[in-house]
Amino acid sequence: MKKGAIITPWEIEGKVDYARLIKEFGIQQMLNLPAVFNKELLFRRKIIFGQRDFGRILDAIKNRKKFAMMTGLMPSGKFHLGHMLLVQQMIFYQKLGAKLYIAVADLEAYNTRQKNLKELRNIAMEEYLSNYIALGLKSKNCEFYFQSERSNNAKKSNAYYRLASNFSRYATFNEFKAIYGEISPGKMNASLLQAADILHCQLPEFEGKPLPVLIPVGIDQDPHLRLARDISQRYKDYRFIPPSSTYNLFFPGLKGNGKMSSSDETSFIGMTDTEKEIENKIKKYAFSGGKDTIEEHRKQGGNPNIDVSFQYLKFFFEPDDKKLQKIYEDYKSGKLLTSELKAILIEKINSFLKKHQMKKKYVNKQVKKFLSKLD
Amino acid sequence: MKKGAIITPWEIEGKVDYARLIKEFGIQQMLNLPAVFNKELLFRRKIIFGQRDFGRILDAIKNRKKFAMMTGLMPSGKFHLGHMLLVQQMIFYQKLGAKLYIAVADLEAYNTRQKNLKELRNIAMEEYLSNYIALGLKSKNCEFYFQSERSNNAKKSNAYYRLASNFSRYATFNEFKAIYGEISPGKMNASLLQAADILHCQLPEFEGKPLPVLIPVGIDQDPHLRLARDISQRYKDYRFIPPSSTYNLFFPGLKGNGKMSSSDETSFIGMTDTEKEIENKIKKYAFSGGKDTIEEHRKQGGNPNIDVSFQYLKFFFEPDDKKLQKIYEDYKSGKLLTSELKAILIEKINSFLKKHQMKKKYVNKQVKKFLSKLD
Repeated sequence: MKKGAIITPWEIEGKVDYARLIKEFGIQQMLNLPAVFNKELLFRRKIIFGQRDFGRILDAIKNRKKFAMMTGLMPSGKFHLGHMLLVQQMIFYQKLGAKLYIAVADLEAYNTRQKNLKELRNIAMEEYLSNYIALGLKSKNCEFYFQSERSNNAKKSNAYYRLASNFSRYATFNEFKAIYGEISPGKMNASLLQAADILHCQLPEFEGKPLPVLIPVGIDQDPHLRLARDISQRYKDYRFIPPSSTYNLFFPGLKGNGKMSSSDETSFIGMTDTEKEIENKIKKYAFSGGKDTIEEHRKQGGNPNIDVSFQYLKFFFEPDDKKLQKIYEDYKSGKLLTSELKAILIEKINSFLKKHQMKKKYVNKQVKKFLSKLD
Repeated sequence: MKKGAIITPWEIEGKVDYARLIKEFGIQQMLNLPAVFNKELLFRRKIIFGQRDFGRILDAIKNRKKFAMMTGLMPSGKFHLGHMLLVQQMIFYQKLGAKLYIAVADLEAYNTRQKNLKELRNIAMEEYLSNYIALGLKSKNCEFYFQSERSNNAKKSNAYYRLASNFSRYATFNEFKAIYGEISPGKMNASLLQAADILHCQLPEFEGKPLPVLIPVGIDQDPHLRLARDISQRYKDYRFIPPSSTYNLFFPGLKGNGKMSSSDETSFIGMTDTEKEIENKIKKYAFSGGKDTIEEHRKQGGNPNIDVSFQYLKFFFEPDDKKLQKIYEDYKSGKLLTSELKAILIEKINSFLKKHQMKKKYVNKQVKKFLSKLD
């Protein structure tokens, strides 16, 4: 890079060594994308930075061929800002014409986290599906299903569970160990079900024939994808197209260490947090790239690349690239103080969540629409 | 036993050390049975010799409460005389009012024996179900299903597969090792499916509530039952009644070593064998308890307890106890020669199979009736 060039905020940064991960797992750099992808800031800002076989999806989009996007949710804890990363992509691909498959991993949660299926079902609907809808997901062209109850159509249910069972013939214990570290029958079962989640939409009982399927994930989910890819090619009774995948940066937790998680109260901002809670959390916990004193900051400037507030603006809350670039430069030069940066973010999040919480009040009818479609 | 007492042919004998097996696995001696059981020679002659929790079944029969009998079939190879042991029991309990559940273990065969599901389906119908019907099984009060396609009713299918998956939380690798020696993901999967086969009929989606379920098996199948019993009691989301079981002697192969098996051409008599084949097989292979020369035999007598031809008469082909007792004594005294004993058996089997093969020609309508009931 030319010395003195403006460093843009779209570079891969942070504590996770993404370059090593890419090299180690054989993930490819993101491809050149057609113009339509520029609408979505996650692509524009390289938050989605890597891929496997994504060319197959671009080809389907270009040639108006059918493709699917598949994803899953683990119904645990509260829905938070970090979950929006995936929802943005669901909505983006749905608009592009993808058929969406969304699996509630309730059997996985039951077997690996000792949860109760009924509770899991409620969490999936109240925390996840409701927020998806409020964020803009449509029931049309979307199958939202539970692993524990795949369909109201027996042919579909039988085909899905049969596939998960059949896959056990094509996997080894060592592969499960590579995914989970230590294995148990419950974890093994969860792995096979997940492979079925990823691949079953290609079956005659679902989309009728093999088709390109995209799974957008964080890089920590790649072992699951590698297993599904491998199984899809070993499987003898059907010619699956191996799944395509894209990889996004982690949405950082408030304290900047690791991704946002609902298991740490001081790491996440939930969709039902009040204005006051959000203000307090950001002021108190949001990791800052600024200097210790105002004087120092004015003199030396802050580091937006490690500043959590800046990252949040970059991921979601400042969609205008020029404005974001200005914030980036002002913070870097010391013109913008940490307290000012945090104030911008607090205002943006609160304004966003106010609207979101309003929308969420009217989703019940839509929730029913989604659930009535399990056929 | 009093010296000089007549030794009856109803004792447990043979190379398998049944007494040790009973002690080791905690199986109980058969209970005193109500008169209705005397109709079935398998009980009368103590071929069914052991049990676990069979009192619960006797209680249901006595008090006219609902109970079920569950069994499975591995659709491999040809149907032979040994398979009749279980069919006799199916028909006996069906007449007593039991609801029958018969699982075709096609997913198990797929995963542990690398078979093709379509072939397995054909074998199950043409070899197994057709013979069941010709032997007298009725479609009324009987669910004959495939593991790969549990039901035409999605609620039932979902409930069955969900159960198999849920069970993975309650089992350990060591338990699977105890059953299979060495384990693989496929074998583990088969074990969990089998536990679901054994227990799922108690679910709300099937019989509506917990009920006594009998699984009649050969003693080699006991590890599967112990696992299902243990899981049924560990399972947190439903109060299963632990399954009851009975244990039958192995039906010996022609050469007397081990049980009849379709994997050894010289060990079994198939239901489609011709008169000539049967005559040849019995003359050539049927292990004899007789002496080497006629003179010796006349002088010292034979041993009916190790004689395969005598065992076959005892298991199925001489239903008259007095006649069987006479054959036993005559053979023991040397009055009856091995060739004469074999001639009795050859005539009995050929006469039985002639009728059976006639009946089997007319089962197609019944087969359809069974298959239309997977709802």
